[in-house]
Amino acid sequence: MAKPAILTASHVLDLSQPLALDGGQSLPRVRIAYETYGTLNADKSNAIIIFHALTGDQCVASPHPITGKPGWWIRMVGPGLPIDTGRYFVICANVLGGCYGSTGPASLADDRQPYAMRFPVITIRDMVRAQVAVLDALGIEQLHAVVGGSMGGMQALSFAANWPSRARAVLVIASTARHSAQNIAFHEVGRQAIMADPKWKGGDYYGGKGPDNGLAVARMAAHITYLSEEGMHEKFGRKLQDRTEKTFGFDADFQVESYLRHQGLSFTDRFDANSYLYITRAMDYFDLAEEHGGRLAEAFKGVTAKFCLVSFDTDWLYPTTESRTIAHALNAAGAPVSFVELSAPFGHDSFLLDVPALDRVIAGFLGC
Amino acid sequence: MAKPAILTASHVLDLSQPLALDGGQSLPRVRIAYETYGTLNADKSNAIIIFHALTGDQCVASPHPITGKPGWWIRMVGPGLPIDTGRYFVICANVLGGCYGSTGPASLADDRQPYAMRFPVITIRDMVRAQVAVLDALGIEQLHAVVGGSMGGMQALSFAANWPSRARAVLVIASTARHSAQNIAFHEVGRQAIMADPKWKGGDYYGGKGPDNGLAVARMAAHITYLSEEGMHEKFGRKLQDRTEKTFGFDADFQVESYLRHQGLSFTDRFDANSYLYITRAMDYFDLAEEHGGRLAEAFKGVTAKFCLVSFDTDWLYPTTESRTIAHALNAAGAPVSFVELSAPFGHDSFLLDVPALDRVIAGFLGC
Repeated sequence: MAKPAILTASHVLDLSQPLALDGGQSLPRVRIAYETYGTLNADKSNAIIIFHALTGDQCVASPHPITGKPGWWIRMVGPGLPIDTGRYFVICANVLGGCYGSTGPASLADDRQPYAMRFPVITIRDMVRAQVAVLDALGIEQLHAVVGGSMGGMQALSFAANWPSRARAVLVIASTARHSAQNIAFHEVGRQAIMADPKWKGGDYYGGKGPDNGLAVARMAAHITYLSEEGMHEKFGRKLQDRTEKTFGFDADFQVESYLRHQGLSFTDRFDANSYLYITRAMDYFDLAEEHGGRLAEAFKGVTAKFCLVSFDTDWLYPTTESRTIAHALNAAGAPVSFVELSAPFGHDSFLLDVPALDRVIAGFLGC
Repeated sequence: MAKPAILTASHVLDLSQPLALDGGQSLPRVRIAYETYGTLNADKSNAIIIFHALTGDQCVASPHPITGKPGWWIRMVGPGLPIDTGRYFVICANVLGGCYGSTGPASLADDRQPYAMRFPVITIRDMVRAQVAVLDALGIEQLHAVVGGSMGGMQALSFAANWPSRARAVLVIASTARHSAQNIAFHEVGRQAIMADPKWKGGDYYGGKGPDNGLAVARMAAHITYLSEEGMHEKFGRKLQDRTEKTFGFDADFQVESYLRHQGLSFTDRFDANSYLYITRAMDYFDLAEEHGGRLAEAFKGVTAKFCLVSFDTDWLYPTTESRTIAHALNAAGAPVSFVELSAPFGHDSFLLDVPALDRVIAGFLGC
């Protein structure tokens, strides 16, 4: 029997009102680009929103608009899959500040020139606010679930804390309720790499060549944090790339060098450097407890949704302790929560990769 | 009573022969700059060589030649200290490839122009070979001990394996017998950051402004690996720098950002970018087992020195497992070895910082 086709549609929504931002500014003419999969039922009760990660996009289960590669979560989203598009109406929107159709630093300001660094610094909550506007436009009062990994998990937590009545279930994978000093440090290295590139030009590079070298270095540094030490050892070890002897030069002798260089270079084809600055800044600013008087449990006061938290034992970017902190806060707030640490060799990237136990956890949590 | 003065002397040695390198080349006119502390006894049996780390220098207990700051290991080296200059004659040489007086990429080649990237790629063993030439010139046949932390530990291991009769004791701190995929990956990010800086100019920047921006980014990325996540959290957490509110901009809002930027910028005043490329390359190439048929125990066959290995529980750059691997190989080779994991909050940098237990281990090991 042929695999059932996935019903996909691409949309843009121009918000009818300026978007009020946490920084105090108000952003006019906000456009949000989003994909939907499956069919919204009559009482609009079967919608799931998936929040994407830092360098993700709305094409969760449709081909990437630039690379043409399959969607980033096709193993999870589709007919009969854990996030079953035969049952659920799945929405995924490009985040505010992004570069895949939603308003971001590359968008035109009032003077018909790109915002560039005139774009306001946004927060995770601002990203969520823009996506709540999409739900409003679709007339979806309450979601079956919100789902997100990594930065997507931050958005899911922010959604649950700030719009508590609008989701029945909250699934947070490999994420954290606040960015740690080390998280901030790695992002700062990436930002400095971009800003040190003369082609960055204070952000005003649109229409010309952007800071590809700086952005590639930023991506390389970040990419190391997405993998586990063990995983890198298994995958690359000290294996040489297309050679049997070291060259005694500065070529990519080692496979891991070649892999990282490729990761860096290919990233520049598909991502806007200024978006990278703004989105990493939003992540660094994220501290859900701080928004609620310094007590994380306060963030979840009165929340009625059920929660599921998943961490991975080899994730050193957002390690299990971060999820445990969230679980304790939810317990203190009296919210129903299940929390599981899965064993997987891929580090932080485990949430995107072949971890069958994750499929089962997601299917089970969303289905019941 | 006044503290006894430390007897310090600065030297340079011009090697009488070209230095044969692992890469197959031979380097003419090699100069090695080194410091000595204390007095060599009549039978030349009280010498200790200290090998410095990646961004270290020979001024282990004398003021830094550029910054004027105290030597990098004054807590350990001096009269009455664990490496007691009242008893021992302590030698520390700037590594080959370095930028503190020893021959490196900034040195002049035959054409009276700096080598720059014409400098040959060197190895850890090449660095040691140059320092053995210093011992030869001083007429020191056998050292009381070789001592090194981090890259210094690699040199100590290489010394023990390749010149087994020339040290009675080998002390290796926070080090490894081979660079892992993750170690290589971080170094590659740093090198790419330097090489992406247009001011690098293929290495031919001498006489003008060097690739300071790239070098600063490289240092920032590396610096994260020198600290522990817990240590960063303790020291910085999410504390803001000289402000009470986030600025919603790209200034260094967080203390950890400010600290890292300072680390990056100040490094460019005291280090040559090409030296950074060559020394990191040497570290990445280091694999002591590979040099000995793939079996680490083979490297230590016939070694009669006694060994002491020290690791730190929060060091994720060269974690305890790396020292344990060395200990097992030494056991297999029948060499006497003591191995201790110390608890210290500072990550890899613990070997340079206030860890009294390390002082006791070193004093005890060297003294008996």
